[in-house]
This record gives sequence, C-alpha cells and structure tokens, in this order.
Amino acid sequence: MPDTLYSWPDALTRGVFLTIEGIEGVGKSTAVHYIRDYLLALKKDFILTREPGGTKLAEAIRELLLRPDPHEIMTREAELLLMFASRAQHIANVILPALQAGKWVVSDRFLDASYAYQGGGRKIDTARIDMLTQWIVGNVKPTLTILLDADPAVGLARAKNRGPQDRIEQEKIDFFERVRNGYLVCAKQDPTRFHIINANQPLEKVQDELKKILDLLITRPDSDS
Amino acid sequence: MPDTLYSWPDALTRGVFLTIEGIEGVGKSTAVHYIRDYLLALKKDFILTREPGGTKLAEAIRELLLRPDPHEIMTREAELLLMFASRAQHIANVILPALQAGKWVVSDRFLDASYAYQGGGRKIDTARIDMLTQWIVGNVKPTLTILLDADPAVGLARAKNRGPQDRIEQEKIDFFERVRNGYLVCAKQDPTRFHIINANQPLEKVQDELKKILDLLITRPDSDS
Repeated sequence: MPDTLYSWPDALTRGVFLTIEGIEGVGKSTAVHYIRDYLLALKKDFILTREPGGTKLAEAIRELLLRPDPHEIMTREAELLLMFASRAQHIANVILPALQAGKWVVSDRFLDASYAYQGGGRKIDTARIDMLTQWIVGNVKPTLTILLDADPAVGLARAKNRGPQDRIEQEKIDFFERVRNGYLVCAKQDPTRFHIINANQPLEKVQDELKKILDLLITRPDSDS
Repeated sequence: MPDTLYSWPDALTRGVFLTIEGIEGVGKSTAVHYIRDYLLALKKDFILTREPGGTKLAEAIRELLLRPDPHEIMTREAELLLMFASRAQHIANVILPALQAGKWVVSDRFLDASYAYQGGGRKIDTARIDMLTQWIVGNVKPTLTILLDADPAVGLARAKNRGPQDRIEQEKIDFFERVRNGYLVCAKQDPTRFHIINANQPLEKVQDELKKILDLLITRPDSDS
C-alpha cells in the first residue's frame, strides 16, 4: 500500500505550517492571537485553524468529542479514531490546499495532541497512533511546533474560570500530567521542530519568546514567503 | 501491543452473534423482522441493533456518515475511521455485554460492510481495514452472517421508492457493483460463517431459506441458549 496519501514535499517548499500545542489553560488562544497580529503586520497570507475541527464535518466531530455524556462512556479507541477522522478532513480540505497555495497555516493543536492526549493521557499504545499517523498524516508534518508548557495545576485553574468544562476538561489532574509528559516526549523526539515556551512566565516574556521564534521562522533559508 | 481489546472466546461460548449484510434495497429490514419474530416465538433472549449505530454516540456518528453535504467532500479515510469509531462504541457498550450475558445479538450490518463499502466501494486497501479490524474488532466476529445478494440495479430501484437518498445511496451503480463484489469476496474467504441468500427470489423463498439457516443455528452443538 502507498506510504502516504499526499505529496507533501511539494507543499513544504511553499507554505509554512505552524502548530501550537499545550494542555488546557496554558495560553494557546492568546499565543494564536499574537501570531495572527504578527503575520498581519507582515502582510503574510495565512489561515488560522484548529483541531479537532477546521472543516464543517471536523467541527461536528469536535462536538461529539467534547460533549460530556453521563450515559455513555466513550472508548479511548473511538476517541482516537474520531480525532484522526477529523484530521483526515482537515488535512485534505484545509491544510494541504492552503500550503500548496503558499499560505501560512497556523493550527491550534494538531498531530502531537493525539500522542499527548490519547497516547499519554489515555495510554493508547504509541504504535497504534504511529500507524494512523503514517496513513492519514504522511509527511504533512508541521514546519514548526510551539509547545506552551506549564504545570497542569496552574493551567486547569485558569481553564476553570472560563465556564462549563467539556468532556476532556473534566478529567483529573493525573490525566493532564500524563498529557503534559506526552507532549514533552514528542518534543524530545523531534527537537528541531519543537520550541518549548515556559507558560508559567508573565505574558510579556512568553510573547518575547514567541516573537523570537517567528522572526527566525520568517527568515529561514527555505522560506519563499 | 495486545492482539485484541476483548476476551471474546468467553462470550462466544455463551451468546450468538448474527449479522445481516447486503446492499441497499435487498430486503435486510424484512429479514431482520423475520428473525425477530422467529426468536420471539422461541422465547430467546435477544437484541436487535445496527451499524453504523447501536449506541447514542454511534448513532450520532451514523448521522454524520449518512447526511449528504454538498459543501464538503468526505474523504474515504474519514469515512472508514468514523465507521470504526462507531464500531468501537457498539462492540464495547452493546454487543459484547449482550453476548457475555448469553443473549443473541442480531445486527443489521457489521464488520463485513466496511470491507464491502470502504474496501470494495471506496477502494481502500484491504490491509488498512485488516489493521483496524485486528485492533477494534479482535475476535468479536459473528457466529453467522447472512448475505442477501441481488443485482444492484434491482436493489437500488427498491431503495429509491423509500424517500430521500442518504449520502451513500446517492452513489452510482458501479459503486454498488463494487460493494456487492466486496461482500462476495468476504463470503468466499469465510464460507463457513457466511450464508448467501439470493434476494432476487420471491419473499417466501427468501424466508424459507432464512428459516432453514436459523433452524440449523438454533440446534448447533455448541449452543447453550
């Protein structure tokens, strides 16, 4: 069978694929807003998107994933398969067309979240996730991934102030400790792609680091945008 | 990684898992009604269920799978992953508990439909489906599968009389020819499990054959129900 669905190397040389990862309450939304303003100021052609989600069907799958249902336990297998079903739609209909058109794609979470949440958090064997990754994601890996890292206790306290908790946010602290650790394992395995920012720092310090990373990305040798 | 999620052999010796397969319009619903009346008459403890579906979440996934959306193409990969996400819920929350309680489970479509529709119809490599089957279904294979087989032209004409067509029913005749062929390949690979009924015959003849199959199943040596 073919190794991958997509001929990503063509797209890689044109667009820039930036993903923001991290557990609940670490400031992902604020970081995405900062990146948006940065790209707007430079008049870059970009799209903001998110996972799970990014297309109408993928957003409907997101609803199923996040809606708490006291009457039915979602198996971890269904959770992982729904994530990758939404990802297949997101890549084929949004991410790849934008990259092939030479745009920047900025996504609030992407593939690493499956390793962190379903691998680390739910303890699904990484080999299962590798198998789905090889099939559904292929070479459509982010150019650069920013991991906002903080103690789950701090993040969850922030997230709780935002209103009713979704199905994932209802998990206990040890779940989020495994998720955080899962992210750190991803970062260790791919240190050139990952930039870790300590999200416990004051906002200005976080944004200083974001700016440095974006300045480097903008001027990277293989960037034609 | 473990070969399977479930310890099915325990369940196999207790319940009976009967699946009804076939393309649109071959009379699956009529067959399921006939089987229901047969089991009721014998005072068997049974449940009727269906795929995709069978749990609240799985039925919500069914909605996503069948709803036509002119604005977004569903990738065949998302379609297959959604099928197996709903199947994971169906097996864990409905099929396995019923079998372990010694019940009969009668399902309007199950695993073979993924090989027929996503493998045959959508031309997804069978190795992909095998991989998901080994992981999500494991040994939870039907005791017996009845395949209602008919020329797609006949079945589709019947299905069209039932009202608005869903996303799958909107496919063209060559799609259903590949699906039918996919089912026949499944049957050829597992001839002891499959019973093929020619669905072009008059209803009474179909029901005669159904009765013969059920009579045999009821009296099989390893049945304790």
